[in-house]
Amino acid sequence: MTSTEALVLLDRFRAGQVSRKEVLHAFQAAPVAELGFAKVDLHRSLRKGFPEVIFGEGKTPEQVVEIAARIAERDQRLLVTRITKEHARAIRKQLKQAIYHQTARCVTVQRNHLPKRAGSIVVLAAGTSDLPVAEEAAITADIMGNQVERLYDVGVAGLHRLLSRLDVIQSAHVIVAVAGMEGALPSVVAGLVNKPVIAVPTSVGYGASFGGLAALLAMLNSCGSGLTVVNINNGFGAGYAASQINALAAGELK
Amino acid sequence: MTSTEALVLLDRFRAGQVSRKEVLHAFQAAPVAELGFAKVDLHRSLRKGFPEVIFGEGKTPEQVVEIAARIAERDQRLLVTRITKEHARAIRKQLKQAIYHQTARCVTVQRNHLPKRAGSIVVLAAGTSDLPVAEEAAITADIMGNQVERLYDVGVAGLHRLLSRLDVIQSAHVIVAVAGMEGALPSVVAGLVNKPVIAVPTSVGYGASFGGLAALLAMLNSCGSGLTVVNINNGFGAGYAASQINALAAGELK
Amino acid sequence: MTSTEALVLLDRFRAGQVSRKEVLHAFQAAPVAELGFAKVDLHRSLRKGFPEVIFGEGKTPEQVVEIAARIAERDQRLLVTRITKEHARAIRKQLKQAIYHQTARCVTVQRNHLPKRAGSIVVLAAGTSDLPVAEEAAITADIMGNQVERLYDVGVAGLHRLLSRLDVIQSAHVIVAVAGMEGALPSVVAGLVNKPVIAVPTSVGYGASFGGLAALLAMLNSCGSGLTVVNINNGFGAGYAASQINALAAGELK
Amino acid sequence: MTSTEALVLLDRFRAGQVSRKEVLHAFQAAPVAELGFAKVDLHRSLRKGFPEVIFGEGKTPEQVVEIAARIAERDQRLLVTRITKEHARAIRKQLKQAIYHQTARCVTVQRNHLPKRAGSIVVLAAGTSDLPVAEEAAITADIMGNQVERLYDVGVAGLHRLLSRLDVIQSAHVIVAVAGMEGALPSVVAGLVNKPVIAVPTSVGYGASFGGLAALLAMLNSCGSGLTVVNINNGFGAGYAASQINALAAGELK
Amino acid sequence: MTSTEALVLLDRFRAGQVSRKEVLHAFQAAPVAELGFAKVDLHRSLRKGFPEVIFGEGKTPEQVVEIAARIAERDQRLLVTRITKEHARAIRKQLKQAIYHQTARCVTVQRNHLPKRAGSIVVLAAGTSDLPVAEEAAITADIMGNQVERLYDVGVAGLHRLLSRLDVIQSAHVIVAVAGMEGALPSVVAGLVNKPVIAVPTSVGYGASFGGLAALLAMLNSCGSGLTVVNINNGFGAGYAASQINALAAGELK
Amino acid sequence: MTSTEALVLLDRFRAGQVSRKEVLHAFQAAPVAELGFAKVDLHRSLRKGFPEVIFGEGKTPEQVVEIAARIAERDQRLLVTRITKEHARAIRKQLKQAIYHQTARCVTVQRNHLPKRAGSIVVLAAGTSDLPVAEEAAITADIMGNQVERLYDVGVAGLHRLLSRLDVIQSAHVIVAVAGMEGALPSVVAGLVNKPVIAVPTSVGYGASFGGLAALLAMLNSCGSGLTVVNINNGFGAGYAASQINALAAGELK
Amino acid sequence: MTSTEALVLLDRFRAGQVSRKEVLHAFQAAPVAELGFAKVDLHRSLRKGFPEVIFGEGKTPEQVVEIAARIAERDQRLLVTRITKEHARAIRKQLKQAIYHQTARCVTVQRNHLPKRAGSIVVLAAGTSDLPVAEEAAITADIMGNQVERLYDVGVAGLHRLLSRLDVIQSAHVIVAVAGMEGALPSVVAGLVNKPVIAVPTSVGYGASFGGLAALLAMLNSCGSGLTVVNINNGFGAGYAASQINALAAGELK
Amino acid sequence: MTSTEALVLLDRFRAGQVSRKEVLHAFQAAPVAELGFAKVDLHRSLRKGFPEVIFGEGKTPEQVVEIAARIAERDQRLLVTRITKEHARAIRKQLKQAIYHQTARCVTVQRNHLPKRAGSIVVLAAGTSDLPVAEEAAITADIMGNQVERLYDVGVAGLHRLLSRLDVIQSAHVIVAVAGMEGALPSVVAGLVNKPVIAVPTSVGYGASFGGLAALLAMLNSCGSGLTVVNINNGFGAGYAASQINALAAGELK
Repeated sequence: MTSTEALVLLDRFRAGQVSRKEVLHAFQAAPVAELGFAKVDLHRSLRKGFPEVIFGEGKTPEQVVEIAARIAERDQRLLVTRITKEHARAIRKQLKQAIYHQTARCVTVQRNHLPKRAGSIVVLAAGTSDLPVAEEAAITADIMGNQVERLYDVGVAGLHRLLSRLDVIQSAHVIVAVAGMEGALPSVVAGLVNKPVIAVPTSVGYGASFGGLAALLAMLNSCGSGLTVVNINNGFGAGYAASQINALAAGELK
Repeated sequence: MTSTEALVLLDRFRAGQVSRKEVLHAFQAAPVAELGFAKVDLHRSLRKGFPEVIFGEGKTPEQVVEIAARIAERDQRLLVTRITKEHARAIRKQLKQAIYHQTARCVTVQRNHLPKRAGSIVVLAAGTSDLPVAEEAAITADIMGNQVERLYDVGVAGLHRLLSRLDVIQSAHVIVAVAGMEGALPSVVAGLVNKPVIAVPTSVGYGASFGGLAALLAMLNSCGSGLTVVNINNGFGAGYAASQINALAAGELK
Repeated sequence: MTSTEALVLLDRFRAGQVSRKEVLHAFQAAPVAELGFAKVDLHRSLRKGFPEVIFGEGKTPEQVVEIAARIAERDQRLLVTRITKEHARAIRKQLKQAIYHQTARCVTVQRNHLPKRAGSIVVLAAGTSDLPVAEEAAITADIMGNQVERLYDVGVAGLHRLLSRLDVIQSAHVIVAVAGMEGALPSVVAGLVNKPVIAVPTSVGYGASFGGLAALLAMLNSCGSGLTVVNINNGFGAGYAASQINALAAGELK
Repeated sequence: MTSTEALVLLDRFRAGQVSRKEVLHAFQAAPVAELGFAKVDLHRSLRKGFPEVIFGEGKTPEQVVEIAARIAERDQRLLVTRITKEHARAIRKQLKQAIYHQTARCVTVQRNHLPKRAGSIVVLAAGTSDLPVAEEAAITADIMGNQVERLYDVGVAGLHRLLSRLDVIQSAHVIVAVAGMEGALPSVVAGLVNKPVIAVPTSVGYGASFGGLAALLAMLNSCGSGLTVVNINNGFGAGYAASQINALAAGELK
Repeated sequence: MTSTEALVLLDRFRAGQVSRKEVLHAFQAAPVAELGFAKVDLHRSLRKGFPEVIFGEGKTPEQVVEIAARIAERDQRLLVTRITKEHARAIRKQLKQAIYHQTARCVTVQRNHLPKRAGSIVVLAAGTSDLPVAEEAAITADIMGNQVERLYDVGVAGLHRLLSRLDVIQSAHVIVAVAGMEGALPSVVAGLVNKPVIAVPTSVGYGASFGGLAALLAMLNSCGSGLTVVNINNGFGAGYAASQINALAAGELK
Repeated sequence: MTSTEALVLLDRFRAGQVSRKEVLHAFQAAPVAELGFAKVDLHRSLRKGFPEVIFGEGKTPEQVVEIAARIAERDQRLLVTRITKEHARAIRKQLKQAIYHQTARCVTVQRNHLPKRAGSIVVLAAGTSDLPVAEEAAITADIMGNQVERLYDVGVAGLHRLLSRLDVIQSAHVIVAVAGMEGALPSVVAGLVNKPVIAVPTSVGYGASFGGLAALLAMLNSCGSGLTVVNINNGFGAGYAASQINALAAGELK
Repeated sequence: MTSTEALVLLDRFRAGQVSRKEVLHAFQAAPVAELGFAKVDLHRSLRKGFPEVIFGEGKTPEQVVEIAARIAERDQRLLVTRITKEHARAIRKQLKQAIYHQTARCVTVQRNHLPKRAGSIVVLAAGTSDLPVAEEAAITADIMGNQVERLYDVGVAGLHRLLSRLDVIQSAHVIVAVAGMEGALPSVVAGLVNKPVIAVPTSVGYGASFGGLAALLAMLNSCGSGLTVVNINNGFGAGYAASQINALAAGELK
Repeated sequence: MTSTEALVLLDRFRAGQVSRKEVLHAFQAAPVAELGFAKVDLHRSLRKGFPEVIFGEGKTPEQVVEIAARIAERDQRLLVTRITKEHARAIRKQLKQAIYHQTARCVTVQRNHLPKRAGSIVVLAAGTSDLPVAEEAAITADIMGNQVERLYDVGVAGLHRLLSRLDVIQSAHVIVAVAGMEGALPSVVAGLVNKPVIAVPTSVGYGASFGGLAALLAMLNSCGSGLTVVNINNGFGAGYAASQINALAAGELK
């Protein structure tokens, strides 16, 4: 029941067209309808920011295309994550403006290129094997309206590569730091800047990396302040959270 | 070597008082001195925000008092975390304005009550046993200059208590959601708001909670967007990150 | 040795057709034969409920067909779980009435459609990737004679979808709640209803979900009362337990 | 907002005493108020069954007494779990009818001894060290209005002790099977009966029992049908779920 | 129901003194009575070997004394494991012949010193910290009638100490090898002898020994043949199994 | 250097044919040569029992054939474990008497059928999926000269099947009990017999079985006495240890 | 900024061609440029020892060839690890001198055969399945200029094979000990020599080896002194560390 | 049997004073005696370096004093690790020159201050809570004859403190890097130097540090070359290995 429908109902009640009991019943059924109201609000605020994102893993190309098409009907932008080349081909067949980002395993659609909000998000990757996750974060932040700066292959084993770009890192609003193996990059970065650092462990590594557990634990135990962590390989989650913080900083969510 | 010292050195070089080689050497030795520059900058910016925080665990009362006294000499505010009643007593003997927050296991000193920045941080706790961690987050955010709203005992087992305060939660800038046991609270909250949610797992629970591991994993695997996670029981880390985001939103860190 | 056979044996003994020693031997072999008695009782009560279920995983199509055929000889209904398309094809070749449920990875045979018992079982699934497990639970509960209501894609990230169907959930006898990722759905549901909730963790997720461990631990640590848990992905086990409770509620097992 | 209040509001609206907008606002604010409605329903049905249970662990004797006193004001029965002798003494000082169950670490209050519902709950314990957990389950089921049968020290190492009481077990409505160490008891029982079995792993054991993990995993992996599991040492949860199933069987929750 | 009782029953049935239904009922009730038969047999064979062993951990001194006294009434030998000095004192007050083995944390009673069976059991301990576990194994094997040879401090870090006693090890019937830390001793021994080796991991170690997990895994993964493993610190289990094998070798159990 | 060679050397030294230094050197080189002695002894005693067993996993068919051929040159019997159909085909091409045991994934060669030693080894398997591991144990025990009795599909979920064969189990010398899932079979068996039980956990299961970890932990924590454990899926190890115990019981290894 | 560039800048400043502020800025930007200085130093010293090593895993053959070609332009030697036959073929097409080491999964290029440094590195492997890891260590140590001695199949199950080569082991400068399964080899070796032992756990094993975790934990808990550990299967890391120690011993790194 | 004793024996044999059989027997008993030879060699070389170190944990003060006294009789230096104040007091009562190092939990005795070998060992500690482990490493390296440089509180959260001492670190022979929490320090250091780095994880941390597991995994997965790892908190092991490498570099062990 939308706000408008609710107002109509009340008018009809006052006009004696519906009984007191019927109105009560409509509103009592409402907890959800009304939470739906709140949800619609959320949806609207989300829609201002970005429509629903499609997580492709475990969905068939047909399913993904169907959902993508429905969203694309009413939205200017679209993001599909965790897809294969096959998914991408199927989407592009349906949506001509769709762009396939192979490394990031994403497809984006962007009809009108909207102006980016002020303040950049820097995405750091420790090694070249971390690029799929880092790119997923970068593509997510980009399509959500942020200026994104990529600094890749800046792992702590070659500290000078990181330090030589310190100015870029320090001038960003939010830092997304992606690393597998020993996962030390976010800790080092958090010690060098005074901005929110979102740490993304990756499953890059072998032996006792246990699928990214080593990097995850290292990041959770970081002695650097202002550092928060997302799930292993969750580039999208980091990009989304970074964008949300940046939008807040831009005064959009207040 | 500070900026001033560097300028003096260059003047002396132009005046022929030091050789070209000596100047080169001073700057070559500098990587650290110069990174120290940057560090000094960081320190200053940090000092504007907040001085070094003392982690009391594993330190004797004497050690804590000594560090606290030195910081209190030049700073208006002070935060000491993870302390016992004994530590608190020792600090208050030395620093008369010190306030002991028993539940939070913190001591704070605040000489001049500075105005709080705009935008509130909401701290949610799922159960009463999560209060020590939630309070640590709240005290941290408060002393760092934020308006803090506490909503406790709003776990998902009694969803209505959470939903009845939805307006307060939705109007905050940042949400810190503290939960032990199954750790579901942050996931539910992240689905209801469009603001950054910092999830703090606690070691509250028994049996297969494995010291908070259950809650930690639940939070890392949350399907709610915009949610990031800190270490088990790390209330301070959550409060610090929340404050940093809020300061960014207030335009302080740009 | 069934009850009937035992009675015949005793008659023949009284008639002098078998010796005392032979009778003794028959019953001495009986610890098992006699437990077999009890077992036969169990079998009969089970048979009233449902015949042996075939777990297809790790069996060849030929093996499954052979066992299925033998059960189908004397039973009206049949359930085969955890099979591939290949298994299904082989079974259907032999048993014409067999129906293949692709998502649930099950085959069922139901000769005479028996009336369902009163009281429904609601099967909830948090996300679309949880459907194979949820459908396994639903098909199991259905073939065992229960009315089954399916509510899918009602995860806690979109709480309104769950709350809008609260009446359906609250009016059921038993709730099966299936979820991967952070596994929060059963906890939230257990807080909203006063009926047994059987929680089924799934291996849906990535990174630190560790094959469903995150969801499993979350469910075991739930602060919601009346919630019990089955193994990861064990849709059959949940459907079976739900049916058993519902049959008990229908007065069948007393 | 209760149903009554809602009806009053609508009357006042029809009478022109409140505006259309005010009514809309009241109902829009309602999602929670109305969910509160549902919650009130839940509370009522719960109250018919049993009032809120106090989990004593991590609460001071004073806190427990205060909550207990408030519940005891309007309820005939009361259950406090996970307490020490100290808590018990404090409660009994305030509530004279309170009984302290030392092994179960519980206190119960029961003003009028209500008739028990038909159908018994059997609580099995594998070893004597499992008694605290088994007793917690038994006391919980008892105070919630069930006939409880205790069979202790019936672990699988001495199978005859279990089998000799098979008739008692088979005639129960629900079985709670408590075991530490290798946790095999519930699996064996589930193979012998056709009733819901709730398995409770305990932390009894040493070495590679890892605080009850061995028993927990064994129970989750049971090949016995109709078996569900609760958290390690969660006797209360098992007793509560068993009571809920038994109440359903008694037609109380339909 | 014993065999004799069964024959009597059948005679009475043939004589018309009991009904067909009564006989059937007696045998149907029997599964357990008859398994009880088998159990009585087991008990007797066990009694020939050794009476029930009391596991002291988690029992009060009073409980231990009571059980010990009852066993001592009819048995020549007694073993109580995992006890404190307090338990020992209480037992010795009641049973004057009781001997307290402090390192092994055991008490034994042995009224008539029975002759030991042929063939020795060698108990090896890698380090001095493993002695409590090794002694528990040795005391157990000794009281059960075996000749026990102790070789302690023969860890693989000083291989020569082990090799210098190779003759003693090779001439034993069964070897119990106790080790914490890296748990390599049983692997090395199994490569040197052609007798059953029972490996006992201990919780001796620190850091990544994780309470004996490291040693346990090492022993389970041993590439030495003929090696089997018991639980961490389970000296009693190893001594018992070794004795059982030795008794089998002595022709006692055939 | 053999004993004989050593005596010759000493004679030659006394005869002045070799220097003192040469003798010393020969014996100093000896620690290994002499340990080699012991090793030769071991080899001989092993050879009386059985020649080296080939572990096929990770070896090419060519490698396996080459080793097998060399052993078959001088030995009557041969065992190759963990092989594929391909390996088997290659071996049989070379060794005509070789028999391929498909379920056990083994090849055996046995030129002259030697008489079996007295006393049987019973191999129990809980479910049909456990057969590969159980058969590996059975084939190993058989080729090593033992009478082997197989009892399969006797899991604890259908206790009567196990109990009905109790006489066979109780009359064996050694019991090998193979089980996946909850791993309860060995615990139940150890409570019913007075013979060594070797427990073999298998990786059969899903979800929280974690590749056999659940069964392994259950077996290590068994409250049944006389039970020892081998690695997950290690049928060969169990068969070997059982044979060693049986040979000891037959007086062969004394 | 190189040393030369810095000197030029200072000259231009003295000549008044750049301002004091410009110089300051250049050096302030320098931390990294200057750390780059240090890095160049490192590079040079590394280059004396060995150029950058290419980790092939997760790189396409094209990527590997491109990097290899660039390094081979200016360096005499090259090492590519963790590659497939396909990678090797692609490299050899481009670099004619490239040698493919199949077992080690490495390619090396060595234009001028440089003299080896004094002092050997011994690489031990417990079993034949450990060869890929052992060979990776050996090839790494060899190409980095060390004399390498290989002793394979010297696991602790056949101790005499290890002891018979003790002189070779004791005369080496550094020992690399590679083992899977129970990982006991390095512990035994560390007890026999007085040189640094680098332990390499491998993922060889099954069941409770958990991908090499068992061997890793065993090595970390070794009671042998002077033993350090690298990641599971990290043959390269062990070879590199051994070479570094040997170069230090040869006086190269002082 | 020493070399000298062996020569005497052979002379006596040639002189007819002992029989051929006696000589043979002496050498046959020798495998160990002769390995003892090698062991004596090891002991001697060790003695030149350092006598046996006493691990105090799990030993009574009396036991430690007894062993310490015996070693001190014939050795100039002594090291006792992992002791309490109580142990220290007992040792100092007996050995007047003993020095108690409280932070390191060690006692050392050093009669004649021997000259230190060339080349220093640098011990780095990330935080002040890591000092006990770092000091154990430093004291061990010092008493074993090395120049030790301590750099404490140089964790990666404040990178400048580490970088400002880079010259000291780079000029050392071996680096011991001690860190808890996220354990990133050794990775960063290994990227900055070309010397062996021994990483020591500590149990410093809370929550998901899991007693040092996080730091341990981070170090094992380090992408820095030349880094090896010891057990959690194993300062002694790191100091010992560092000393061994330094002695090798000094030409002592060749």
